[in-house]
Amino acid sequence: MNIADYFPMWNKLTSAQQNILKDTAALRSVKKGTVIHNGSVDCIGLLLIQSGLLRAYILSEDGREVTIYRLLDRDICLFSASCIMPGIQFEVIIEAQKDTVLWIIPAHIYKRLLEQSAPLANYTNEIMASRFSDVMWLIEQVMWKSLDKRLAAFLLEEASLEEVNQLKLTHEIIGNHLGTAREVITRMLHYFQSEGIVKLTRGIVEITDSAKLTALANS
Amino acid sequence: MNIADYFPMWNKLTSAQQNILKDTAALRSVKKGTVIHNGSVDCIGLLLIQSGLLRAYILSEDGREVTIYRLLDRDICLFSASCIMPGIQFEVIIEAQKDTVLWIIPAHIYKRLLEQSAPLANYTNEIMASRFSDVMWLIEQVMWKSLDKRLAAFLLEEASLEEVNQLKLTHEIIGNHLGTAREVITRMLHYFQSEGIVKLTRGIVEITDSAKLTALANS
Repeated sequence: MNIADYFPMWNKLTSAQQNILKDTAALRSVKKGTVIHNGSVDCIGLLLIQSGLLRAYILSEDGREVTIYRLLDRDICLFSASCIMPGIQFEVIIEAQKDTVLWIIPAHIYKRLLEQSAPLANYTNEIMASRFSDVMWLIEQVMWKSLDKRLAAFLLEEASLEEVNQLKLTHEIIGNHLGTAREVITRMLHYFQSEGIVKLTRGIVEITDSAKLTALANS
Repeated sequence: MNIADYFPMWNKLTSAQQNILKDTAALRSVKKGTVIHNGSVDCIGLLLIQSGLLRAYILSEDGREVTIYRLLDRDICLFSASCIMPGIQFEVIIEAQKDTVLWIIPAHIYKRLLEQSAPLANYTNEIMASRFSDVMWLIEQVMWKSLDKRLAAFLLEEASLEEVNQLKLTHEIIGNHLGTAREVITRMLHYFQSEGIVKLTRGIVEITDSAKLTALANS
């Protein structure tokens, strides 16, 4: 993917603006597990994901995590440039959930372009609205869906992202995604196992009946 | 308040753009309880609140509510123009929680100005980021705060908004704000009463020890 491919309104930028984006974007590889952005501590810039998987999560004072959304190939990560967005009053941590290759556009460069270009500013608004929608989806899940359905949906999503049925996931990692204690996840997974939906072995959750899991997630 | 007062970047608009905003804004009064915006059903436009109180909430399939934020004097309501914002994939309902006076800027007019003006587009982004921050605060509350603390914080907020200690609130209305069943609210309020924090009479919750309530909310 070229830089232009990430911006559907590319043709509405001046050629000077296009060149600034192309010339300042730096291609980087980050290893699985790397924390790319940590709340207000840093402000690396806009991330354009070429391949891989990023996870955005929040952290409670006592160290509990909840995944708020995940970003895939072709997605743009905005909150890694949150310092240039007045109004953002929360801290998100972004880490690579897989080895990831991405373009970085420095925050101050992007800010300057936003000030010049209404199409770019409106497109940035659209990206933020998409992330907002992800978070509203999460609120609906947390408020109105029981944990068994959320866990079922998470396992299916993970299997789809990793393209395997044998998921290398500890119960603690699953708890960190869903914002739930490990013990609660363990209990629910044992229930899934007794229903023949999954098979548990050390550090692995294998989906053995994905039709039943899908039915549960959608119920 | 004039229209200009709502837009800190007013001087960065051309005088033609300023005139469009001033000429198309219509001043309206809405009665307490009026639903101003109902998900994707309508798209009235941007609302600039002169006085009053708006409540934004989401609704589950089976009719449960959760308040996601409230808007006061000087606030701008963006989601009443959600049709002009691609990327918004959730439905919010906005109702007047008090008699409210507001300016309405029609959605199609605002959209045209957004396309022309980078300062206006960036400011719109800032408003969305503020609402995003409200919703992230809600997620943190729901995930990590117990109901007694959330209820304490809600009663204090309500007393501050209404400027009284005797709150006209049924347990059902409180449940709708917090996304919790009426019975659960009733049980918690009785506990508060037994602790001398509130006094309950028909349709009224009176705060009798606001210091203790504040301590609970912040604990």
